[in-house]
Amino acid sequence: MSASDPTSLPTPSACVADFCIIPIGTPTASVSNEVAQVQRLLKQTGIKYSMHSAGTTLEGTWDEVMHIIGQCHSLLHANGIVRIQSDIRVGSRTDKQQGFEDKVAKVEKLLAEDEK
Amino acid sequence: MSASDPTSLPTPSACVADFCIIPIGTPTASVSNEVAQVQRLLKQTGIKYSMHSAGTTLEGTWDEVMHIIGQCHSLLHANGIVRIQSDIRVGSRTDKQQGFEDKVAKVEKLLAEDEK
Amino acid sequence: MSASDPTSLPTPSACVADFCIIPIGTPTASVSNEVAQVQRLLKQTGIKYSMHSAGTTLEGTWDEVMHIIGQCHSLLHANGIVRIQSDIRVGSRTDKQQGFEDKVAKVEKLLAEDEK
Amino acid sequence: MSASDPTSLPTPSACVADFCIIPIGTPTASVSNEVAQVQRLLKQTGIKYSMHSAGTTLEGTWDEVMHIIGQCHSLLHANGIVRIQSDIRVGSRTDKQQGFEDKVAKVEKLLAEDEK
Repeated sequence: MSASDPTSLPTPSACVADFCIIPIGTPTASVSNEVAQVQRLLKQTGIKYSMHSAGTTLEGTWDEVMHIIGQCHSLLHANGIVRIQSDIRVGSRTDKQQGFEDKVAKVEKLLAEDEK
Repeated sequence: MSASDPTSLPTPSACVADFCIIPIGTPTASVSNEVAQVQRLLKQTGIKYSMHSAGTTLEGTWDEVMHIIGQCHSLLHANGIVRIQSDIRVGSRTDKQQGFEDKVAKVEKLLAEDEK
Repeated sequence: MSASDPTSLPTPSACVADFCIIPIGTPTASVSNEVAQVQRLLKQTGIKYSMHSAGTTLEGTWDEVMHIIGQCHSLLHANGIVRIQSDIRVGSRTDKQQGFEDKVAKVEKLLAEDEK
Repeated sequence: MSASDPTSLPTPSACVADFCIIPIGTPTASVSNEVAQVQRLLKQTGIKYSMHSAGTTLEGTWDEVMHIIGQCHSLLHANGIVRIQSDIRVGSRTDKQQGFEDKVAKVEKLLAEDEK
């Protein structure tokens, strides 16, 4: 192991995380109110984010991103949801800086070449 | 249990599935070529789908959707990737029909009301 | 692309899938009844499976595994749950046969060597 | 919204998180070395954890758990892996304290009653 004391390692300085938050034990099967509350919080934090139908993608330092997703849980708890489950897909890389928009652009460029 | 023989149950007639496919043991850290191959396959199948930076969302019967995600694995295997891992978020509901575009529209409508 | 018609590709002949199933819109925050129903169904199917605190791991052909997870959704729907969300981590590989028990054993062997 | 300034909310004081870490762009399809490195780090941190074939489950405060998963990424980066993707299933609840062992025990109790 190259790190002499891995428990003192910092967390990654950049990551992209996509999360899908699910309230459990709610009176209805609709989750749109909860998702809207989360979107409002994300907007207030100033983090870079993008919502899609299966989750919301965030971009920032590991600590920022995870802190904000935790706050989304706390916000829904504060609003009466007793149990919350999230699925988070998080990636970090050291070979280059790549935001979530770059990832889509790169694939779309490859696909556009098919048309030529 | 209300189903007398649950092993004969059909799979859901509708679902929305979002998947993120990751090739393992590839020479480079880039996955855009593999994602582009998957997008080309999806287009050929005729299924309704939408790509975003953290995955691709499909809409169809359970069997269709899972068959196609399996074919995406097989396609990458056929192209030389020996190991593939996907994360799939899949939802089904019986209270109403809701496609992936409806989910985003409903949240955006709630957020638009904030502006009024 | 090496596959001339990728839409006719078969799905993988072997996979390991780990799924976490969440009922939405239930009267209580407990999900243990639903998880127990799923476990009973899995037992009846005869598939190889293993439950842990964050999900259940299945091993079989892609079609078997995905069919059974779909039946788990249908079972909970039949028992009155109108909306269900699962997170599935699924892996396939062509370089060797590896069941879920082998994966743990291999890591534990590496860790055991630390003690020597 | 009941929280007057949601951006000042704390993260949850307890959570259970299950993560599956995948190195991308590695010379081989085997990930057991990387998983073993992660297990060694987890042991050194003193957090409560349990490995299974599809991931590792952690129990602690939100901040502790997410900090440690971030350190796992950093450790693999330090050891030469340029890109890493994790899937994290994380749950928090305010109605009761429930560790990951309690969750399995509760389901197993329900299943044991079937035998009576």
